[in-house]
Amino acid sequence: MNNFLRICIFSGIVIVSLEARGDESPGLSGYLETASRITKAGLRSGKAYSLLSDLCATAPHRLSGSEGAKKAVEWGRRTFESLGLERVRLEPVMVPHWVRGPVEEASIILAGERVPLRVCALGGSVGTPAAGITAEVLVVQSFEELRASGEKARGKIIFFNRAFDRSLFSPFAAYGGAVNQRGAGAVEAARAGGVAALVRSMTARRDDVPHTGGMRYVNGVGQVPAAAISIVGAERLVDALSRDPHLKVELKLSCETLPDAPSANVLGELVGSARPHEIVVIGGHLDCWDKGQGAHDDGAGCVHSIEALRLLKELGIRPKRTIRAVLFMNEENGTRGGEAYAAASRPGELTVAAIESDAGGFMPRGFGVGGSVATFDAVGKWAPLLAPIEVNHLVRGGHGVDIGPLIAKGVPGLGLNVDNQRYFDYHHSDNDTIDKVNERELELGAIAMAIMSYMIAEEGLPVAAKP
Amino acid sequence: MNNFLRICIFSGIVIVSLEARGDESPGLSGYLETASRITKAGLRSGKAYSLLSDLCATAPHRLSGSEGAKKAVEWGRRTFESLGLERVRLEPVMVPHWVRGPVEEASIILAGERVPLRVCALGGSVGTPAAGITAEVLVVQSFEELRASGEKARGKIIFFNRAFDRSLFSPFAAYGGAVNQRGAGAVEAARAGGVAALVRSMTARRDDVPHTGGMRYVNGVGQVPAAAISIVGAERLVDALSRDPHLKVELKLSCETLPDAPSANVLGELVGSARPHEIVVIGGHLDCWDKGQGAHDDGAGCVHSIEALRLLKELGIRPKRTIRAVLFMNEENGTRGGEAYAAASRPGELTVAAIESDAGGFMPRGFGVGGSVATFDAVGKWAPLLAPIEVNHLVRGGHGVDIGPLIAKGVPGLGLNVDNQRYFDYHHSDNDTIDKVNERELELGAIAMAIMSYMIAEEGLPVAAKP
Repeated sequence: MNNFLRICIFSGIVIVSLEARGDESPGLSGYLETASRITKAGLRSGKAYSLLSDLCATAPHRLSGSEGAKKAVEWGRRTFESLGLERVRLEPVMVPHWVRGPVEEASIILAGERVPLRVCALGGSVGTPAAGITAEVLVVQSFEELRASGEKARGKIIFFNRAFDRSLFSPFAAYGGAVNQRGAGAVEAARAGGVAALVRSMTARRDDVPHTGGMRYVNGVGQVPAAAISIVGAERLVDALSRDPHLKVELKLSCETLPDAPSANVLGELVGSARPHEIVVIGGHLDCWDKGQGAHDDGAGCVHSIEALRLLKELGIRPKRTIRAVLFMNEENGTRGGEAYAAASRPGELTVAAIESDAGGFMPRGFGVGGSVATFDAVGKWAPLLAPIEVNHLVRGGHGVDIGPLIAKGVPGLGLNVDNQRYFDYHHSDNDTIDKVNERELELGAIAMAIMSYMIAEEGLPVAAKP
Repeated sequence: MNNFLRICIFSGIVIVSLEARGDESPGLSGYLETASRITKAGLRSGKAYSLLSDLCATAPHRLSGSEGAKKAVEWGRRTFESLGLERVRLEPVMVPHWVRGPVEEASIILAGERVPLRVCALGGSVGTPAAGITAEVLVVQSFEELRASGEKARGKIIFFNRAFDRSLFSPFAAYGGAVNQRGAGAVEAARAGGVAALVRSMTARRDDVPHTGGMRYVNGVGQVPAAAISIVGAERLVDALSRDPHLKVELKLSCETLPDAPSANVLGELVGSARPHEIVVIGGHLDCWDKGQGAHDDGAGCVHSIEALRLLKELGIRPKRTIRAVLFMNEENGTRGGEAYAAASRPGELTVAAIESDAGGFMPRGFGVGGSVATFDAVGKWAPLLAPIEVNHLVRGGHGVDIGPLIAKGVPGLGLNVDNQRYFDYHHSDNDTIDKVNERELELGAIAMAIMSYMIAEEGLPVAAKP
């Protein structure tokens, strides 16, 4: 890629190469050696796991607006600085501030007996009155079933019990087929005359741990509380309903939404040697739900990004363009950090690409590569660099909630893909803790991020422009 | 593959297709549908995890010759029968019978204080005298270093402390670089005049759990006891030696080898519809060390094989050739089951291929395919059937301890390859328990075994014959 300016037309898109004459490229064999150095250093003495352990111990609950999120922002800044990364700074952003509050309980009341039901409020939910809500239950599998139920829903707690389709190989596809119950269950319950929404947790794992996650209200529809119950809890409730369809459930939640709060994205860099104003963004999100420790979601993505820079710095590898790690705030319930980052004015800067890691710290498999076909072809040529660690499965299509606003502005987006069969066992729940993360698998993700970001920062990517 | 007899010459090897005219082949699209049915059935309602849970609860310790191994053999027979598999039977084999015994302890004696050291005898080791062995310690990194130490080794406990090379991507390569200390440390210690061998556990995971495994003596060299200590224990001992090179370690082991004991391989089948005398062997080993539950090593391989047959049976899929699941006895310390299976006379039978699963119940990635290039090419054509579950990474070279004796007789061997970064965290230790196994990852291994064994049983493999 030593042409001064390379223009070609591919699928009707004009591709302009950013490469300029005089930028020296070591060729694939040189890059193979660099990738091997990065790999060996990471596997031998990488710090991804100790960084993640530190984050999980310092700020296990990092929901936007919380004290934990403040601690996490300070942790990010301190960590970047202690590792000697460059231009470390915070970019302020106002974020939603929802709090769970001290009360969160539910019971099945059947034949005069109370059977406790483990429950957790969904993020954004209103609370119940202090005395709780006690009502009969209507169990439905879908919004269509609820809408067809007519007056039967009135005054009831609506229990959305559609399970993950386990027969799908992709857990994300199964999640996609179920998650509207969590996001819109409360609105649909209110429309049908219901008084609250209970939602089967977004997981295929059978245990008694409820999983939280975002929900939303819409203008013009009353706000009723919404909470998740575990898979075991859902089974217990269905069983109890089979014995007495008129049993009642009592639900008490103290959650509420407070005024927006100040927070920040955290940035640190390895400044490019030749084109410092051209930026490769790598990142994950620093906020997480107030359950577990956010170890996989998304502490892993944060330390993937930090460790990628640390590895390059330790090895004295400084690419031509700048690599900037961004720990985004507020992915879980607002995306304010991602939006603020993309909206900020940084005169003279050009964002070459953005790589997000938000699928956990599992064994990495490859990257989803967005942007043009030419971008995919360019990245595809680097697959041999990732083959020795078996992270060379490249697929079309890169996305990520935090880099979504950058992608919308035309920046090629990439996503680190990892093994995902275990992801929803832990997601948004007390199960998402550091002991579920394997040190070497986590480090390999960081190594993959280091190699990919280095290659983009060194070689650039073709830029697609409308003719 | 509808030719009556297909002969071609490839790399100087004559390839004779086993396919006969009249055997109908549904073509790749038909096979894709069959593979999809197997996948959906397994993911929706597979039994691999519940089978493994049952095995781990019934017979967590299944070392050859033990009561646990007897229970495991009975479990295997009962399980095959309860699932309706065919020609269920035991094939007897005499196996080594080593027992750990009740006493297994060690301490560092430093400045009059005793610091306990978690220890476990290596399989096959002799015990110590009842009063134990108390001696100074010589720490070495290699046999070369030990041999060069001359008189310094005499009367000492030799501590083999060479760590896994963490910088290697393949944990099996790191294991290969360290495991001679476990296998031959006692012999080398005795040759140097040492009184016992302590070996750093075969893992890269830093915890206080020692890992056992096989060791051996040789004729003409005295037998000294050998035991493993954990990584934390090894660090503690090195640290203590840095303070006092003349500290002593006390080691007490009550292990011993008893006379060979009767045991058995367990067999069950799905009998072929057209060529029942042609056999595809699939299997794992039923024995395991007496630590943990042998969940990954190799309960997983056993249930991969059982579940593969169960899935085919549930779906009414009966291939032309017979698929035989073999739960091999005594992989860990003798391979007697694998040898007996291969040596047995079964008149009229032809073994078409043998597929072993002995790398754990982690996310499957593909198969190692042994035999000829033509075999690899034939199997390679089926990769699209495994692509939807991302188990289509096929590499040359199939092996397996249990199927080794079959491979030595010319049978093409295949091995199920799975993610292996976590394997040695658990291997041969108290860490290898059912909670370390993910239900869906385990089931996907069984699905991959079902698809591969079905394809071989339906299509056959080219047979390489010397011209």
